Formats: sequence, C-alpha cells, structure tokens
Amino acid sequence: MNILVTNDDGVTAPGLLALAQAMRPFGDIKILAPDRNWSGSGHVKTLERPLRVKEVKLVDGTPAWASDGAPSDCVALALLGFLEEKFDLVVSGINPMPNLGHDVTYSGTVTAAMEALIWGVPGIAFSLGSVENGLAVSDYAAAASVAQKIIDAAIQHSLPAGTLLNVNIPMLAEDQIKGFHTTRLGLRVYRDRLDRRMDPRGRPYYWIGGDTPTGIPEDNTDIGALDQGYVSITPLHLDLTAYNAIQGIGKWQLSINNPITNRLPILNQTLLER
Amino acid sequence: MNILVTNDDGVTAPGLLALAQAMRPFGDIKILAPDRNWSGSGHVKTLERPLRVKEVKLVDGTPAWASDGAPSDCVALALLGFLEEKFDLVVSGINPMPNLGHDVTYSGTVTAAMEALIWGVPGIAFSLGSVENGLAVSDYAAAASVAQKIIDAAIQHSLPAGTLLNVNIPMLAEDQIKGFHTTRLGLRVYRDRLDRRMDPRGRPYYWIGGDTPTGIPEDNTDIGALDQGYVSITPLHLDLTAYNAIQGIGKWQLSINNPITNRLPILNQTLLER
Repeated sequence: MNILVTNDDGVTAPGLLALAQAMRPFGDIKILAPDRNWSGSGHVKTLERPLRVKEVKLVDGTPAWASDGAPSDCVALALLGFLEEKFDLVVSGINPMPNLGHDVTYSGTVTAAMEALIWGVPGIAFSLGSVENGLAVSDYAAAASVAQKIIDAAIQHSLPAGTLLNVNIPMLAEDQIKGFHTTRLGLRVYRDRLDRRMDPRGRPYYWIGGDTPTGIPEDNTDIGALDQGYVSITPLHLDLTAYNAIQGIGKWQLSINNPITNRLPILNQTLLER
Repeated sequence: MNILVTNDDGVTAPGLLALAQAMRPFGDIKILAPDRNWSGSGHVKTLERPLRVKEVKLVDGTPAWASDGAPSDCVALALLGFLEEKFDLVVSGINPMPNLGHDVTYSGTVTAAMEALIWGVPGIAFSLGSVENGLAVSDYAAAASVAQKIIDAAIQHSLPAGTLLNVNIPMLAEDQIKGFHTTRLGLRVYRDRLDRRMDPRGRPYYWIGGDTPTGIPEDNTDIGALDQGYVSITPLHLDLTAYNAIQGIGKWQLSINNPITNRLPILNQTLLER
C-alpha cells in the first residue's frame, strides 16, 4: 500500500513526524508537505504561480518533499505525477489543534483530504484536541496510536465511496481516552474580533483576533465527542447541496420574462445595457 | 437594507461593478473586495499576518475598499466591524467563470458567501458561465439582471436558515436564457495536469496546468442546467457530514483497549513513547 502523508502546518511539524512514523507498518510512506504553516488556508488550487518542491529530511532522517504550495496543492502535486507511486491513501496531520464543525472548510488539514477524494484516493485528516503551543513529537503518541487503529479498521472495512474521514483525538493519555464515536459536524462558535492597530508610520492595519472558538457540545457531534473524551470520527463528503431547500426555492416562480417588481428602478443604462 | 458586495477576482473586476450597480435599487451598497485576483483560493481565514484596507474608487466613481486579504477575509473584515453597517446581505461576484460541483470548496466567490453565513448573514454567489477572458462590464448585463431577479425573489421569500445560494448564469443574451432551475451540485471532471518546466538556472518548477474542467451534465444539477441554457440556483449549506456513512463506520468496533492487529509491528519507541 502506498500512503501519502501531508499536513497544513509544515513539513517540520512534530505532528507530521508522528503520523509518518505511525503509518509505516501499513505500507510505503511518501511525505510531501508545505514548507510553511498554512493553517486556515482553505481548499486552495494554486494556478497563478508555479510551485517549487525541494527534497528535505525529517529530524529522524526520513526523506520528504517540501513545497511552497498549500496542503491541497501538495496532494495535487503528488497525485498528478510529481511522485510516481499510485497512492492508496492520503493521510493529513496530525494537526495540533482540533478541526471541528465549520472549521472543516477553512482547515488545510481537512482540505488536503478533500483534494485526495477529488482525485479518487481515500483521505483521512487527523487533528489533536489541544490548545497548547509547542507540542513535541511525544505529545502526539496517543493520537498516533489512535490513527493506527483507525487506518487498521479502514483497511479492513474500507471507506464508503466519496467519503473522507475527519478525525479529532482528545489530548489525553491513551488509557484515558474513552473510546470512539462516529459523529456529525457540530456547531462551532467563533469569537473572532477585529483588532485595529497603527503601524510606525501611522497607518492602520487589522488583525483577525479574538478568542479561540468554542462550540456546542451536543451528543453525536464531533464537538460533543471530543468534549467528553472520545475520539471523534466524522465522515464527510463534498456535496454541500442543501437538499431540503431545493423544493422551497423551486417555488419562487422566477422567470426571465416576468417584469421585475417596483423595487427595481431603471438602472444606469451606460453600464448595464448590452 | 445594507448590502455588502465582494468578489474573488479583485476590486477592479468588471463583474464586481456590474453586480454593485445591479444591487443599488435594493438598498445601501458597500464594497469591500480583494486588491488582487484570489481565484481558487478556498475558504481562507488569515491569522498569520495582519490585513490592510485602502479606499479606492470603481471606474464609475463608486467608493469601495480594497483589502490584501482573501474574499472570505474581506467579508470577515466588513462583518466584524471594519464597516459600521449591520449588513442584511452579502453578494459575491459576478465571477467570469462558472463555479460548479466540487468547485465550490475552492471558489473564492462561493467561500465569501460561506463566510457571510458563518456570521449569520445571507450570502449569494454569482458566476457567469463563460470561458472567455477579458470580459467588459457590458458582458455582465444579462447576469446582472438575473441577479436582480434572484435578489428580488430572495427578499420576497427569504432564504432558509443556514443556506447560501450558488448561482451560475449562462453566457447568453437575456432573452436567450431559458429560465431558472433549482439544482443540486453536479459532478465536476477536472483535467489538471502537472506541467514541469526548468527555470533559467536549471531548477524545476511545476504548474498545475491541463484543460478547463468539464462535468457530467445530469438533469437537476448545476452543470446540467447551465449546459442547457438555464440559470442554476444551488442552495448550499456548511454541513459536510456524510450522514449515510455514519452507521457503517459506527460498526467498525474500534476500541482503545483492543489490541492492534498483526499488521502493526512495534513502533520506534524513541519517537512515539510518551
């Protein structure tokens, strides 16, 4: 089995090393990851500039590739032929912070697994439920062991078509983890605030600041499971269609030929006439 | 009604001007858009650097703000307080190329509307089904008129909670457009290829190249509707949970206490022991 390992916080991150080590028993490992941190980068396809890839080594000597692209670019590079292997699995992480609820569309860790799915390869994203900075490789030991159990089961049962897994693992010793819950995405509560500052030349700049997001720890959700000390496994797909809204919107009686309502005065003809 | 207008291909794009003009009859318009093209940028939250915002004017003299952040950052800036208004609606576009099927997680146009939804404001993304470059404002006239009809209807019927709209409009004269279809996301077929080149110093670099994506034009999908000359309105939500996979994965009998299978030799203790 050929396994691609990537992440969103860069090739030197300890979580990547822990994941790469943990994947070794399952097959041949290749590592292609960003050369810097891309947290909050979203699902990127870099088209406006070319990408560079250089050969590096992890601290244990494992050969790896580092790219100046986003996590999803790294997956595209590997699967589109930069690496010659035909990959059976893409794993991403282990991210030091959780990726829960609405985080999944922002998360480089998760969007790397999405990119794998788009190219027809199973993808699994792993994140740790930590809020601490400066974790060491050893801090990922329990999470790496959990990742092994999940890969082991995924190989045995195989993943449903069109499905990726988003796994969040509590920051606990392995014997303190209560078990595994298969969950839906919960409701994240963002607490971002805009922080306006002045530069030394008197010009304003703006940080997206504020507090760490919380969430509503409902049962059967990723947020609830992690909060209660369980590993959360959320199956995700890429169909964002809100099916229950289709029928209602279909009744809006929109028509090209209908006159527009009184709310619409005549527009600036210079700009909008054909 | 306060309406925020943004886009993903930059504040100077003609599609933004067409959309801003079209929105004027519905209320007070504010424009905050990226200062450059962010196509394929995904759902970004810029946390590693601060953002700048400068005052600019569109070619018709309309005041606007340009930020060095991504489309979703522009929405966050506006909604988190850079602009004082309480916004009732965020519109994004009009993008010169369609955003169909799996495009929605990559698309800056769509992720701007996602960001609005995260902050509790309805978001609508508009894209034109064109494959041409160098469109003029007048090329967006039919699409702008279609956008007005949709906003008019959305105001009358209001959007379901937690739902954004992804609208794709055929590149046709208004009287050639066949009507409106409410759709689900279709299956996009990407034809990316890796293009390896050498720089003048003999070092390789890689373009994500290849051909424009196609798609499977099934009935009731965005791809099918656009292909047949209809405006496609796809309601989207942010819950990516693959609900039909939860039960199956729940039966994997994962347990922290279970021994791992024979597939797992003992790991490098130095790196993984706690």
